[in-house]
Amino acid sequence: MKQYLDINDIENLPETIKEAIELKKEPFKHKELGKNKTLAMLFFNASLRTRLSTEKAAKNLGMEVMVLNVDSAWNLEFDEGAIMNLGTAEHIKEAAQVLSQYADVIAVRAFPGLVDREQDESEQVLYGFQKYATVPVINMESSTGHPLQALADAISIEELSFKKKPKVVLSWAPHPKALPHAVANSFVQMMQKREVDFFITHPKGYELNPEMVKDVKVYYDQEQALEDADIVYVKNWSSYKEYGKVLNTDNNWMLTKEKVGNAKFMHCLPVRRNVVVEDAVLDSENSIVIQQANNRTYAAQIVLKKMLEEL
Amino acid sequence: MKQYLDINDIENLPETIKEAIELKKEPFKHKELGKNKTLAMLFFNASLRTRLSTEKAAKNLGMEVMVLNVDSAWNLEFDEGAIMNLGTAEHIKEAAQVLSQYADVIAVRAFPGLVDREQDESEQVLYGFQKYATVPVINMESSTGHPLQALADAISIEELSFKKKPKVVLSWAPHPKALPHAVANSFVQMMQKREVDFFITHPKGYELNPEMVKDVKVYYDQEQALEDADIVYVKNWSSYKEYGKVLNTDNNWMLTKEKVGNAKFMHCLPVRRNVVVEDAVLDSENSIVIQQANNRTYAAQIVLKKMLEEL
Amino acid sequence: MKQYLDINDIENLPETIKEAIELKKEPFKHKELGKNKTLAMLFFNASLRTRLSTEKAAKNLGMEVMVLNVDSAWNLEFDEGAIMNLGTAEHIKEAAQVLSQYADVIAVRAFPGLVDREQDESEQVLYGFQKYATVPVINMESSTGHPLQALADAISIEELSFKKKPKVVLSWAPHPKALPHAVANSFVQMMQKREVDFFITHPKGYELNPEMVKDVKVYYDQEQALEDADIVYVKNWSSYKEYGKVLNTDNNWMLTKEKVGNAKFMHCLPVRRNVVVEDAVLDSENSIVIQQANNRTYAAQIVLKKMLEEL
Repeated sequence: MKQYLDINDIENLPETIKEAIELKKEPFKHKELGKNKTLAMLFFNASLRTRLSTEKAAKNLGMEVMVLNVDSAWNLEFDEGAIMNLGTAEHIKEAAQVLSQYADVIAVRAFPGLVDREQDESEQVLYGFQKYATVPVINMESSTGHPLQALADAISIEELSFKKKPKVVLSWAPHPKALPHAVANSFVQMMQKREVDFFITHPKGYELNPEMVKDVKVYYDQEQALEDADIVYVKNWSSYKEYGKVLNTDNNWMLTKEKVGNAKFMHCLPVRRNVVVEDAVLDSENSIVIQQANNRTYAAQIVLKKMLEEL
Repeated sequence: MKQYLDINDIENLPETIKEAIELKKEPFKHKELGKNKTLAMLFFNASLRTRLSTEKAAKNLGMEVMVLNVDSAWNLEFDEGAIMNLGTAEHIKEAAQVLSQYADVIAVRAFPGLVDREQDESEQVLYGFQKYATVPVINMESSTGHPLQALADAISIEELSFKKKPKVVLSWAPHPKALPHAVANSFVQMMQKREVDFFITHPKGYELNPEMVKDVKVYYDQEQALEDADIVYVKNWSSYKEYGKVLNTDNNWMLTKEKVGNAKFMHCLPVRRNVVVEDAVLDSENSIVIQQANNRTYAAQIVLKKMLEEL
Repeated sequence: MKQYLDINDIENLPETIKEAIELKKEPFKHKELGKNKTLAMLFFNASLRTRLSTEKAAKNLGMEVMVLNVDSAWNLEFDEGAIMNLGTAEHIKEAAQVLSQYADVIAVRAFPGLVDREQDESEQVLYGFQKYATVPVINMESSTGHPLQALADAISIEELSFKKKPKVVLSWAPHPKALPHAVANSFVQMMQKREVDFFITHPKGYELNPEMVKDVKVYYDQEQALEDADIVYVKNWSSYKEYGKVLNTDNNWMLTKEKVGNAKFMHCLPVRRNVVVEDAVLDSENSIVIQQANNRTYAAQIVLKKMLEEL
């Protein structure tokens, strides 16, 4: 694998999911593969789960890991021909090339500003590293996608071993803050590639990017959408049309035990209890959120493994 | 060992101290024990000595170490049934369970606020991790205790090889800032379990928690307390009664060469020179503070070793 | 090697440069050398290249690495006999001795304030660690020098394999911010020890410390200085005489394709494009800045190797 910027970079998805499940059984089996190889993890935004699971994955493969929390301290320039006499101190050209001298794989997290849609969608940090790095680049959540999460989600669904094609519903939930679309986008993309019946439900005004949704059926009526669901994936996102705005915090959209019924409950975490979903769901046996978090390690590990095999 | 929240979690203290001294002679002897095991270190407050000595200890045992400086960035919820629509973004239930997916041992540092005694004594961070984590938890200094320091202190005293039962005095010292009770508490608890004659001295108003002090004799007259002492352990703490207040910065309580006489001098560091203790004491041969700091490694290592042996 | 505070600590420079070039061919050859040895890296200022390349170097040698970003959080006292009742919480005496308990080599970065020349030149952080640490200390850029950079520069020049003695010119460049003298100083010192014809060019008022420059010829006319140059090393620094001041941001001093001609272009990075040097130079085949950055690893690695061999 030459890069993992979005889920389309996975060549054979069903096979990759199976391999990840195999890895989970013997996580240290390929520890020789990463010997003398280094993963540099660059966080332009804070991280907990992604940081720890990706670091764990790399070390399971015997890699060295260098974590760099650059926050806003590293003021990169992205424009060609810029006269850098203001706030930016280093051009992405040098930054990416230099990092490629010290690492065999570079993983990058850079969140959207949620103010200027066009700028966010240009993914200048992620694509800047892709363009100029001379080693494989991994997306650890960018403006528009979180493909490591989506792969962990797919692994978690596979592990549920449904005998029939399960009905999967992505349901928007209220949240006091404006959140990115990345997790929802990647999950929507992923479900379209899997053997599932997939639906989305959210209030009017919360339509996701139509290029992601394509012909997935969208319900504005949550109850109708959730009927006979096998899996309910809950996630908040801010408006895409009125970009980055919180239009609605109607707690009628919170997922309850009654609504979820016997369906499995998924969420990428962190989750605000009794706002996004009530305690009774999270604390029930139908919640697989901890298993999902665990699978983050094996999602990262299968991606790193495929990269190491081609180095 | 299933957890190390306070010194009472050590089953056989004399034996454990002896084993730590053995470890110090051959720190890398058990490097196979921690193979493919990971320690996650969570710092809700800054750390230098504890960070480096515990990381060193884990690596001496062959463990992988993941350090997370969460500071105030990780706003955890601790209340059952909370509606998380305000500042908190993740419940300790998920936080602890998720971390347990990525680490085999979790070590946590969380200082007291020194404003609300009841809240500090509820130890919500430490006990939250204890309750929900599915792996062993280590206290790297909480509101009420610093058991790794106390174990290092006990190791240091053992290494002094007194032939008779030594007289140990914990002496309060002035300090411009309000400091926690954790180090003093754990030292007081530890001394009550060792073969020493133990006394405490401090100005009126600086009485420690009576549940810690029990029937240890307390002097308000420092000179009287220090008479014929073999070991003087100096430490500042803020008032416990008038919780978190600095009542007194009387520099007559500073430890001097004259007062300490031929006794060994101990302090957990960092120490404010010529405020807590004068240069002449710290720079004398009777100061064992550097050796004490070194023993932090072996205190952490014996605790980790006992945990790894039961994993 | 007992310390690497400045380039004079290298005993046999030509041999050391050759050994570094050998290391680069087989970076993992000496992985047994650093087994069970720990490098502690202390950053009082932010770092990217130095952090990653030095960490990489240590791991190439099999060392464990502990990175501590202390920023301004660790308020050290440097004065003998100080009464520490104000802002400082730990004396360098304890700090350095304690760190020496946890690490086999200590590397320190501490930038100048660029306000008080005498204070900056006293190098209290670096020399404080040198004085009190009981293990070797490495300078990862101090007020007055950046010897790891200078060694990487010398390696890079050696790799160019000039058949005749090359003409090397250090050319000042404009920059909007006041920058330290460390890189320029160490490069000037290094060039005086190499088989090169070395010249410096800068506007009036930007004279470097005469103790560094000694009898190196200085031109105020950049064009004249660059004539027939084989290597142009560009770097900004603030005024030394009017200490820390930006006297001139005349962009006529920016290095252009026309000025550099066929000479090789060097810079320590990060570099402000089209302010310090124009795109056409950086993007040309004559720029060796990425190779220079890569050599930072081998400069650090040869220094660490020589230290480990004497431990």
